[in-house]
Amino acid sequence: MVEARAWQIVLERIEQDLLSGALQPGDHLPGERALAADLGVGRSSVREALRVLEVLGLIRTASGSGPRSGAIIVALPGGGMSALMRLQVAAQGFSVDDIVQTRLILETETVSRLAGNPDNRALTVPRTLLSAMDSANLTPEEFLTLDAQFHLSLTEALGNHVLTATMAGLRSSIEAYVQSGLPGLASWPATANRLRHEHRELTDAITAGNVELARTVIHDHITDYYVETGLAERSGESVPAPAR
Amino acid sequence: MVEARAWQIVLERIEQDLLSGALQPGDHLPGERALAADLGVGRSSVREALRVLEVLGLIRTASGSGPRSGAIIVALPGGGMSALMRLQVAAQGFSVDDIVQTRLILETETVSRLAGNPDNRALTVPRTLLSAMDSANLTPEEFLTLDAQFHLSLTEALGNHVLTATMAGLRSSIEAYVQSGLPGLASWPATANRLRHEHRELTDAITAGNVELARTVIHDHITDYYVETGLAERSGESVPAPAR
Repeated sequence: MVEARAWQIVLERIEQDLLSGALQPGDHLPGERALAADLGVGRSSVREALRVLEVLGLIRTASGSGPRSGAIIVALPGGGMSALMRLQVAAQGFSVDDIVQTRLILETETVSRLAGNPDNRALTVPRTLLSAMDSANLTPEEFLTLDAQFHLSLTEALGNHVLTATMAGLRSSIEAYVQSGLPGLASWPATANRLRHEHRELTDAITAGNVELARTVIHDHITDYYVETGLAERSGESVPAPAR
Repeated sequence: MVEARAWQIVLERIEQDLLSGALQPGDHLPGERALAADLGVGRSSVREALRVLEVLGLIRTASGSGPRSGAIIVALPGGGMSALMRLQVAAQGFSVDDIVQTRLILETETVSRLAGNPDNRALTVPRTLLSAMDSANLTPEEFLTLDAQFHLSLTEALGNHVLTATMAGLRSSIEAYVQSGLPGLASWPATANRLRHEHRELTDAITAGNVELARTVIHDHITDYYVETGLAERSGESVPAPAR
């Protein structure tokens, strides 16, 4: 058994307080000095634990002094999942192909569920984003940003925060690769038109309650884009690092 | 635009070095002093960034001094996903129901793929774990540990590291809740026998290439256990915190 290091003691204490309900979302954490004294560790160890909690999306640190300063429990997982997956892709712990395959699984299930229980309100945000993407004045980067928001808005419509945070993490983990694939396209306007057309096919299939069609459209839509930009092979070969 | 804080500057630099290939898995990071001097930040900021990388499963820090000491790039995402999801469940960023629903999606897809492409080697580890679970001498906690390993071994057989790390994170995020559900069971021996039976049904369905049966068995297996222990309602109601 390895002895817990000082910063781990701080993390464990905060986790226990969250589990017991002694700490709740919206609560302020005790200050650095109080936590350090209470746990018998140095203030630098407290700060290290707070950084970890911040990156994982557990706390937000406010600047300034007074009762409104210090760290607040927020429990917003999206940023933490994105940081983790992005860094793991950068460090080759996750391959781009494995990210894309996992995205395919979750997004196919997403559109299946939406089409299986058609509800026009669920498509309000996605349709607004599609209208925005019809503009001819968008740069490829702007278009791709809206595109990512469109896909995420479909998962958000299901109301499962774990799915949403995971999808956000998967997408942002390969953001640099998606952007770096642009120069490899034969014609951006042609690709943009194809993407617009496929997005409408998808929302129409969902509205019509056609589960099988929605599954086929999303699968081909995602796979074709990664193949077209040279980011992934259907055979699952590895992918070069993006230019930075 | 918020100015990046010192520890974020360190994180971004390491991410860039990973993306460019200047840092690779197995490489040692520069020492604290060198990183601090190079980036013009304090050593405490470097240490904060290193803790973040350690919790996210990017580096392992070795103790001692000399050329073998310091932080090594490891890129092992499982622990990071578990820490993130466990803390988000504790802080109510993720609900137990959303975790269970996401687990159902990924595990149903896992057994579909295994049954769709039956390969007896894929089931070697899962079957070994099932044999271990036949022992009458296991405590409920030991049984549940093997049970978790069995389920994870099915996903591992697919060879997708993103799926595996996500499944490991989902399962460990509700570990405390799973164990706390034990006293709510009418009879542990009866539950254990039912779980053993369902596990065999599942591996038999996979071996037989029966995708539909494998999907049904895994769905009912997971759902029934959470309902039986009072951890989840089929209706998706919220779940009380576990005793600690």
